[in-house]
Amino acid sequence: MLIHLKKDILLEEAKKIADELKAVLIEKDEIVLVTPSKLQELPAHLQSKVSLAVAVPNDIQLASRKYKDEVRSIKFSNFEIGGESNSTVMISGPCSVETEEQIEQAAKFCLEQGVKVLRAGCYKPRTSPYSFQGLGLEGLKLLAKMREKYGLHIITEVRDASHIEEVIEYADIIQIGAKAMYDQGILRRCGKARKPILLKRGFGSTLQEFVQAAEFILSGGNDQVILCERGIRTFETNTRFTLDLCGISFLKENTNLPIILDPSHAMGYAYGVADLSRACVAMGVEGLLIESHPRPKEAWSDAAQQLDFKQFAALNASLKAVANAVGRQMT
Amino acid sequence: MLIHLKKDILLEEAKKIADELKAVLIEKDEIVLVTPSKLQELPAHLQSKVSLAVAVPNDIQLASRKYKDEVRSIKFSNFEIGGESNSTVMISGPCSVETEEQIEQAAKFCLEQGVKVLRAGCYKPRTSPYSFQGLGLEGLKLLAKMREKYGLHIITEVRDASHIEEVIEYADIIQIGAKAMYDQGILRRCGKARKPILLKRGFGSTLQEFVQAAEFILSGGNDQVILCERGIRTFETNTRFTLDLCGISFLKENTNLPIILDPSHAMGYAYGVADLSRACVAMGVEGLLIESHPRPKEAWSDAAQQLDFKQFAALNASLKAVANAVGRQMT
Amino acid sequence: MLIHLKKDILLEEAKKIADELKAVLIEKDEIVLVTPSKLQELPAHLQSKVSLAVAVPNDIQLASRKYKDEVRSIKFSNFEIGGESNSTVMISGPCSVETEEQIEQAAKFCLEQGVKVLRAGCYKPRTSPYSFQGLGLEGLKLLAKMREKYGLHIITEVRDASHIEEVIEYADIIQIGAKAMYDQGILRRCGKARKPILLKRGFGSTLQEFVQAAEFILSGGNDQVILCERGIRTFETNTRFTLDLCGISFLKENTNLPIILDPSHAMGYAYGVADLSRACVAMGVEGLLIESHPRPKEAWSDAAQQLDFKQFAALNASLKAVANAVGRQMT
Amino acid sequence: MLIHLKKDILLEEAKKIADELKAVLIEKDEIVLVTPSKLQELPAHLQSKVSLAVAVPNDIQLASRKYKDEVRSIKFSNFEIGGESNSTVMISGPCSVETEEQIEQAAKFCLEQGVKVLRAGCYKPRTSPYSFQGLGLEGLKLLAKMREKYGLHIITEVRDASHIEEVIEYADIIQIGAKAMYDQGILRRCGKARKPILLKRGFGSTLQEFVQAAEFILSGGNDQVILCERGIRTFETNTRFTLDLCGISFLKENTNLPIILDPSHAMGYAYGVADLSRACVAMGVEGLLIESHPRPKEAWSDAAQQLDFKQFAALNASLKAVANAVGRQMT
Repeated sequence: MLIHLKKDILLEEAKKIADELKAVLIEKDEIVLVTPSKLQELPAHLQSKVSLAVAVPNDIQLASRKYKDEVRSIKFSNFEIGGESNSTVMISGPCSVETEEQIEQAAKFCLEQGVKVLRAGCYKPRTSPYSFQGLGLEGLKLLAKMREKYGLHIITEVRDASHIEEVIEYADIIQIGAKAMYDQGILRRCGKARKPILLKRGFGSTLQEFVQAAEFILSGGNDQVILCERGIRTFETNTRFTLDLCGISFLKENTNLPIILDPSHAMGYAYGVADLSRACVAMGVEGLLIESHPRPKEAWSDAAQQLDFKQFAALNASLKAVANAVGRQMT
Repeated sequence: MLIHLKKDILLEEAKKIADELKAVLIEKDEIVLVTPSKLQELPAHLQSKVSLAVAVPNDIQLASRKYKDEVRSIKFSNFEIGGESNSTVMISGPCSVETEEQIEQAAKFCLEQGVKVLRAGCYKPRTSPYSFQGLGLEGLKLLAKMREKYGLHIITEVRDASHIEEVIEYADIIQIGAKAMYDQGILRRCGKARKPILLKRGFGSTLQEFVQAAEFILSGGNDQVILCERGIRTFETNTRFTLDLCGISFLKENTNLPIILDPSHAMGYAYGVADLSRACVAMGVEGLLIESHPRPKEAWSDAAQQLDFKQFAALNASLKAVANAVGRQMT
Repeated sequence: MLIHLKKDILLEEAKKIADELKAVLIEKDEIVLVTPSKLQELPAHLQSKVSLAVAVPNDIQLASRKYKDEVRSIKFSNFEIGGESNSTVMISGPCSVETEEQIEQAAKFCLEQGVKVLRAGCYKPRTSPYSFQGLGLEGLKLLAKMREKYGLHIITEVRDASHIEEVIEYADIIQIGAKAMYDQGILRRCGKARKPILLKRGFGSTLQEFVQAAEFILSGGNDQVILCERGIRTFETNTRFTLDLCGISFLKENTNLPIILDPSHAMGYAYGVADLSRACVAMGVEGLLIESHPRPKEAWSDAAQQLDFKQFAALNASLKAVANAVGRQMT
Repeated sequence: MLIHLKKDILLEEAKKIADELKAVLIEKDEIVLVTPSKLQELPAHLQSKVSLAVAVPNDIQLASRKYKDEVRSIKFSNFEIGGESNSTVMISGPCSVETEEQIEQAAKFCLEQGVKVLRAGCYKPRTSPYSFQGLGLEGLKLLAKMREKYGLHIITEVRDASHIEEVIEYADIIQIGAKAMYDQGILRRCGKARKPILLKRGFGSTLQEFVQAAEFILSGGNDQVILCERGIRTFETNTRFTLDLCGISFLKENTNLPIILDPSHAMGYAYGVADLSRACVAMGVEGLLIESHPRPKEAWSDAAQQLDFKQFAALNASLKAVANAVGRQMT
């Protein structure tokens, strides 16, 4: 149950109520308590202290449409994702920062294409310890340089809790990768951060678990959470993962969080990305994350799925009409 | 390997060559032999008898883009699906034929909406023997009546081989349901039929198996096969199935068969069908299969996922712009 | 709800009650009606006509432990599977009947090993139309010959409804393959047969659907149904399928049907079959189905997973101790 | 490729070779280099410096049977898991440390049952932020107290990198939970630890990824890694997960790491645990992890799957015979 306390309730009393109800306490303009969802009715003796109480059927609480029936607006440095903007943001860039030359080519290309958010990984959650692991802090510094030089916003991934402070310092949007979705070290720290978080769904995670991972961040006090679907693991192996657009319908119906789709990782091959991207835009979501690289064949990671600049330009040009067809525009 | 014999090769000799190569023989304008795919080179002594030989890497053969690099055209009674038409056909109607009144309401509504193909099941592959099993032959007759009265084309499902002759007799397009995808009794009989076949992917079937099921029909001599993706079974249960659009990218890249998408069965709930339908159209496929019902809540099967007429009309109206945005039109 | 009518209720009246309750009627010593499971209370006006009424929570009805709290006994020609025998039957033989020499070697080897039930396929549900499809009727005749010559019981698979009469005629146990689990043409015909049916779980089928497929046979009047788990399809591809032993715990707890396990198809490779077989026996099930072949490398189908005779003999010898350790014996 | 350098090669030169080959360097009695697996032949100019070179087909390297064809022995405080002991160790205890009274009851019961390793979680990777999250450090201290008082070995889980130092300090075996399997912050730190690591397979992780996660620890210099299968996520939901015993056959065939099975988490319900445990022992693995609790119904987490003491005692008593039947003994 979500409980807003009246403004005259002091923090000390609020803490006592939270203890009584085994609730998480969030301090904002108001004090908000979130109890386990099995509490379905407000105890009578508390009713005089409460300005709003919303019961929800399961632990999708702060993210629930029953609590806020709207798409949250994520704002940072005069940029907006979600909210009432009706716009679909394009985010692009290479899988990994490899060299200054490579990331600068990517940054210039973004600028040229009207892409305002640059993505690239510095801490790569590779499956094998014997392959390229990312440039780490050096990569973050290169990304910061690109931001300064070209005015782009930067999104980059935190792989595990051991380097989270660096990522929070350098990124404009902090990406929590699919393999880290359950990482409470990251989730709880991001709950204290004052930057937007893009949370990717684990490829073996249910929609319920996905949104509950977002609840860890939200209940920590950070209400700037974006959900990102990037494909789930199924029995089908001719494509790398299976993009779950039925799941997007579920998330749009039941949650108030903006949604960004990543068809590149789902497909795993460049050839399918254009069609899938148009399908994603037609779903009416808040953004797209598309991997592009100056020379995909030479990429140090994920070579098969990154678009080259020509492929990306052709795709990008085709999206405007699709966005307009569903009452949105690309930004 | 796909082998076209020269026109002067007589059937008897062709049969000998087929025996030698363990090949399936198809009699058309030309005689076509399809050998197991491990044959990668034409034996030298046969080269003088062959007009075309195409080696493929696996048993996607007649359906392969390496064999025919185009989308096949499915034509029947001056109607076309696929080919160079660049059109996306809308197919709609209830899950089951229930009563004459109900199916007539559905038929009239199709007419009103410009929908030219009416779908409804007569032999229902229900999971339980204790629930409604479909009207059977009586249902087929009602569908035929609607065809005559309203000029609609009829698509209906064969559940198993025991009633296949009836379905072939009554339907314009024979639908092989997801649970029957491996049924060689049906597949082989459909290979001999002279009507278009819509083959649904089994919800536990790989793309490779799916196309190989189509090969059973194609190699039987019927080249009118349409593939239909209707969602696969994954660990996610908040939606009934997971629509596999990555798989559609694979099928478009690798096969020459037209594709129809069924978001209704994938989602399992009416609320997500509109967004998903727009995504399907944006994928650039040849058709959509959407369940609609005059009174979904009273439906005798699949009540949760069928659109009511108001929902369908709103969806249908929105698709034109999406189709146009990807260079296609709805029919 | 399962309803036994009192012995003095005549068939005609029973049919009226069945119509009223939308129930399936089964004629045995008593007349049994099975209504949709949503009927949870017997209508008052019928109580005087009923000797037993059992409500169950879902459409696991005749197979339910709530209805019969025991393991059914499957008896044929003085052989028993299940019941109170506490024995685990070994069934073995090659994937396919290939030649008389091959199947005779297999039959002799069974005899030598104390294996009383010989398995081999004649109608192979192959994925590709361009590979070996089985010997068909000729294969059935070879199996019958082995039965006569060596006194073995024969189990063989029906692939689809088009050849079911032949299989019913020749087999001692009729196997419904994983790909045919939903085939109501087969299920309904087997419900009328008077021979035991071994029903394999579809690799994409839930436990609920699996047992409901058995209900089609049981409610047709054949109470001789054995369930066979042979692996489900998951994201893991280093093994061919995933043997679902958690599912076996569910089936043992909730159903009254004997269970046979097929680790050969689950694993897909000979190397894992011995360990898995011992695990299966330790689960306390009624039987094992193990593929063996005189020369696996030359097998016309499933070459990788069949044990050679030496491997099978070693495995077979090791099972007695495991069976004894869980209070059972191998037969 | 795994490369052992000759003893006279100094560290400085070894580092140069490692750089040249993009290899990970491990300092032990010998210096071992592990290169990406695509290196399949040792460069000629290095051959004089190398005492052993083993090429493997993929990044299962230090864990590979091609490298060490045996089961590694994990030794700590005169206890052994794996190696040539032919014994199967039983590990038991509650899901979470809840109170001193509860964990002491569990510890005494272990002692009584001959169980030498006590398990219980202190940092719980709960799906929801609104449920019990574990006692944290306080729990670790209670476990240490039990160790001292009752002479038990302690295994407990690290949830994320933020509290790894505490877990390494207090535990005898460090458990990396299923949700943390990809967490490189944990894996790399455990590579530097000098305690045995029990690595659980992620429920959405392939066998290949699972073993590669172990490679992160092994290549960090810690060769004491145990693999633990605890069920994977599939489409089946009547049981909580699906225990993958086919996967165990794969791991036994291809890796040199000891294996412990956790049927409690796989099944998710107490009723199936006994049969599954016997099946696990019959697989010939090195250990079992079974949840037990003084009063399961009152447990603060995982109430459904924990055995009560009576159930556990009955199960435990039955395992000796099964272990013996496969040539092993329980410890």
